[in-house]
Amino acid sequence: MPIREGDFVLIQVEDKRFLKRITKDFNLNYKKRTLKFEDVIGKEFGTLVNGFYLLKPNLEAIILYGFKRKTQIIYPKDAFYIAFKLGINKSSTVLEFGIGSGALTAVLSELAGKVVAYEVSQEFYENALKNWDTFGLCKNVEAINQDFMDADLSGREFDACFVDVREPWLYLKKVHSVLKNSAMCGFLLPTTNQVSRLLQEMDGLFAGVEVMEILLRKYKPVYERLRPEDIMIAHTGYLVFGMKIM
Amino acid sequence: MPIREGDFVLIQVEDKRFLKRITKDFNLNYKKRTLKFEDVIGKEFGTLVNGFYLLKPNLEAIILYGFKRKTQIIYPKDAFYIAFKLGINKSSTVLEFGIGSGALTAVLSELAGKVVAYEVSQEFYENALKNWDTFGLCKNVEAINQDFMDADLSGREFDACFVDVREPWLYLKKVHSVLKNSAMCGFLLPTTNQVSRLLQEMDGLFAGVEVMEILLRKYKPVYERLRPEDIMIAHTGYLVFGMKIM
Amino acid sequence: MPIREGDFVLIQVEDKRFLKRITKDFNLNYKKRTLKFEDVIGKEFGTLVNGFYLLKPNLEAIILYGFKRKTQIIYPKDAFYIAFKLGINKSSTVLEFGIGSGALTAVLSELAGKVVAYEVSQEFYENALKNWDTFGLCKNVEAINQDFMDADLSGREFDACFVDVREPWLYLKKVHSVLKNSAMCGFLLPTTNQVSRLLQEMDGLFAGVEVMEILLRKYKPVYERLRPEDIMIAHTGYLVFGMKIM
Amino acid sequence: MPIREGDFVLIQVEDKRFLKRITKDFNLNYKKRTLKFEDVIGKEFGTLVNGFYLLKPNLEAIILYGFKRKTQIIYPKDAFYIAFKLGINKSSTVLEFGIGSGALTAVLSELAGKVVAYEVSQEFYENALKNWDTFGLCKNVEAINQDFMDADLSGREFDACFVDVREPWLYLKKVHSVLKNSAMCGFLLPTTNQVSRLLQEMDGLFAGVEVMEILLRKYKPVYERLRPEDIMIAHTGYLVFGMKIM
Repeated sequence: MPIREGDFVLIQVEDKRFLKRITKDFNLNYKKRTLKFEDVIGKEFGTLVNGFYLLKPNLEAIILYGFKRKTQIIYPKDAFYIAFKLGINKSSTVLEFGIGSGALTAVLSELAGKVVAYEVSQEFYENALKNWDTFGLCKNVEAINQDFMDADLSGREFDACFVDVREPWLYLKKVHSVLKNSAMCGFLLPTTNQVSRLLQEMDGLFAGVEVMEILLRKYKPVYERLRPEDIMIAHTGYLVFGMKIM
Repeated sequence: MPIREGDFVLIQVEDKRFLKRITKDFNLNYKKRTLKFEDVIGKEFGTLVNGFYLLKPNLEAIILYGFKRKTQIIYPKDAFYIAFKLGINKSSTVLEFGIGSGALTAVLSELAGKVVAYEVSQEFYENALKNWDTFGLCKNVEAINQDFMDADLSGREFDACFVDVREPWLYLKKVHSVLKNSAMCGFLLPTTNQVSRLLQEMDGLFAGVEVMEILLRKYKPVYERLRPEDIMIAHTGYLVFGMKIM
Repeated sequence: MPIREGDFVLIQVEDKRFLKRITKDFNLNYKKRTLKFEDVIGKEFGTLVNGFYLLKPNLEAIILYGFKRKTQIIYPKDAFYIAFKLGINKSSTVLEFGIGSGALTAVLSELAGKVVAYEVSQEFYENALKNWDTFGLCKNVEAINQDFMDADLSGREFDACFVDVREPWLYLKKVHSVLKNSAMCGFLLPTTNQVSRLLQEMDGLFAGVEVMEILLRKYKPVYERLRPEDIMIAHTGYLVFGMKIM
Repeated sequence: MPIREGDFVLIQVEDKRFLKRITKDFNLNYKKRTLKFEDVIGKEFGTLVNGFYLLKPNLEAIILYGFKRKTQIIYPKDAFYIAFKLGINKSSTVLEFGIGSGALTAVLSELAGKVVAYEVSQEFYENALKNWDTFGLCKNVEAINQDFMDADLSGREFDACFVDVREPWLYLKKVHSVLKNSAMCGFLLPTTNQVSRLLQEMDGLFAGVEVMEILLRKYKPVYERLRPEDIMIAHTGYLVFGMKIM
C-alpha cells in the first residue's frame, strides 16, 4: 500500500531517525540532502529515496519519536515488559493510573481487551488523548481525568493494574479493593526510597512481590566494528510487581 | 473462581516458586510444611494456606516454570520486547522459525492475529506443541515441522518475522521474499561473531538495523534491606532487528 | 626462577583455576589427568605440564582463590578502584576499619606507604593476619584487633580512610576528626537503605560525595564464539566516597 | 598546608566540578557566584568559600578533568583495574605501548617501580609528557616516541605489559619475547571483532586468557531520592588479559 497524504513515515537517514506526517508542505533536510512531499507520496514503504529510507513506524517508534511528552514517559523497554508481566490478554480489563503522556496505555491497549485509565492532571490527560488520537491508538481505552482516589468503581473488578504516581502507597488499599483475586499489580518508581516505602506497605496485600530494573544496551550495527554505543540510558525506574492476596 | 482439579497454580512459599497442576495426588513439601490436594481444591486464587500462597500463573510463570525445555528458551525479558518491537497486533500474521521450546511463539501468539511457526527438529516441534497444549496456549499458531528453507509459501506475505537459528544469514533472502514492504524482522544470536556475520548479510535487504541486549536485574524485595540479587543472568543473546527494504 | 617447594602456583587447566602451595604431598586431579609434586618442582612459571599451565598468581588470584573467607570479601573489582580513588601513594598513611578477611587491606598495602587497620572481631582479625602471612603480604600494615570507636588516635592524622562496617554513620565524627583536610573517605554498603542513611549523615562533614557501583562482566574467551558468560555477579556493594571538609 | 599560587584545586560547586590551577588571574563564575584568586589563596583544602568547596584533586580527578586529550583515554575505572590486574608492585618494570594521552601510564606509575612507555605518534607523545609534567606525575616513566615494533630491547625483560593499539596482534610475538615467564599482558580494544582476532592470535603464546568489561554506574547522592544517574558511559573498551607461556 503506497504512502498517502497524512500518513506517518519513519524516515531513516544514515543513523538518524525522524517520524514525520506527510503533508503538502513536508520538507526534510539532512546534511545536503532534501526530502519533499512529492518524493514520498505514492511510494511504497521500504523504498529508498535520495538516501532516505521510508519506513512504517511501529508502536515503539510512535512512542519514542511521535508522542508529545508533558512528563517523563514509561520507555518501551519497560512498557513492553510490564504489559506481558501483568498477565493480560484480549479478555482482560486493566486499570492504569498516572498515565502521564499515555505511552504505557498505548502498549497495554494492544494486548488487553480494555484499559481504564485515570490521570489527575488535566494537562497530561489532554496530551495523552491527543497522542493517541494522532496515531489512531487506544480505541479500547476509557480515559478519565480524575484522581484515582476519587474514582467511583463500585462493582467493578480488574484483571490487572499499573500505577505510576509519586506516592503509590496512598492508593494501595483502593487498588487492592478493585482487583480480582491474585491479579497482578505493577508500579514504576524512580528512587530506592520509594521502592522501600512501597514494599513496606504492600505487605499483607500482595504476594509474590518482585523488584527489578531493565537495562537496554544498544550496539552500533557495524559488522566489522561491532561495539556497544558509548552512552546508554542508565535508569528509567524500578519496576515492582505483586499479586493481590485475600 | 475457585481452584479446580486440573488447574495450574503458582505456589509461592517464602522466596521460592512452584508451578503445579492440582491433581488428586498433588503433594508439595517445603521445609517442614506440606500442601496437599484437599488444601488447595476449592480455594480462591490469592489465598494463603499454611504458608503457601496460591496464585494464578501469568504467561511469564508458565514459560519459566511450566514449559519443558529441550533447548535454550527465549527468556520472557527478551520475548516481551521482541513481540512489541515486531510492531504486530491482532491484524498481523507473523512468521517465526527455529521455535525451539515454543516460548516466544506463546508470547507472539498473544499479540498477533496469527503465527506461522517452523521448527526443523521433530523433537523440539513435538515438545513445543505439548507445552502449548498443556497450558491451552497458541490456538492461533500454525506450526510446521519443517526447515523454513523447504517451506512452500508461494503467495503468502507476512507482517513480521522472528528468526532463532544458528545461521540466519542462510535464510535471509527467503525471509525477505515473504515479508511485506517495511516489515520488521528480528533475530536472536548468542555470539558477537554471529551478529557481525548477520549484519554483513542484512545489508541491502533491511534498513533501520538495530542491535541490542536486554538485561534484567532483580532486587531482593525486602524494604529495610533493599539491594540487587547477588547473581544475575548476564547473557541470553543479542537481538538484531531490521525492516525490509525493496 | 624455577618453582620451588612451598611456592604458590596458579594452575590453569581448561577453564578451571586452582591456587595451590607446592608441597611434597601435592597432588591435583582434574578429569583423568594428574599433576604431582615432581611434575611441578623445578619447572619455570609459564610451563605447560600434562594439560596444566603453571602460572604465577597475581594479587587478584591470591585474594580470590587463596584467601580464607570468614566474611564477605571486598572483591578485586571494587578494591582496585577503591585503592586509587582514595588518592593514596607511597607517602600516604591510610586508615581502614572493618577489614574482614583482609582483601582490601592487601590491595591498599601495595599502593600506600602505610595502612592502619582495625577489626573488632577477633576471629576475623586473626584470619586476616593469617591470610597476609600465608602470602607474604601487608608488611606495611599495622593491624589492631579493636573497635575503631575505642581506638586512641590522639595526634594521628590520615591521608585517606576506608570503612566497611554495617553502621558507618556511628563512626563518622571520629573518622572526620582523624582525617587530614580534604582527605578522601570511602565506604562499602550492600543496601540502598544504608546508602541513604550514610548520605544523610555525611552532610556537613564531607563534600564531593559520590555513590556508584562497579559491574565486572566476563566473556568466554573463545575467538569464534565470543559472548558474555551466562551468569555474573550482579551486586557486591555500593561504594560511597566523600572528601573531608572543615 | 594552605593553598598556594600554582596549586591545582578541585572545585566542587553544587554537582559541578572544576579542576583549576590557582594563578593571579584565576576567576571562576558559576551561576551568580564568583571565586577569585584572593578567595582561594592561603585557604586550607577542604574549605567552603561562597558555595565553592576547595578540594585536593586525586589522580582520578587529574586524569578526568586535568589531562588534555588528544586521544580517547583509558578511563580510571579501567585503568585502576588494569594496574592491579597486571600484578605489579614497586619492584616491577612494566612495558606499555600506545600510551595515548598518558592516563594509564600515570596510574601504572603509582604502583610500579618503573614504566617503559612507547608511543609512535609525536603529537600524542608530547601531549602525554606535558600532562605528566603539569601535574608532577610519572617520574619513574621512561617514555619513548617510537613504534614499539622498532624498539631495541635486547636483553631487557618486563614483569608485565599493557597494549593499547588498534592491531595488537601485529606485536604479539615481540611482546612475548620481552616478557618474563608467566608475566601478565593486558589489552584494551573497543570492538568485538578486534577481541576475536586477538584471542585467535594469543593462542599458544598466552594462557589463562580473560575477556571482560567494567561498567561504572553512578548514583545521584541524594539521601531521600537515591537513584542511578539517567545516563551512563556504556562502553569504553573490552579488556583482555593473558599470561605468557613458554
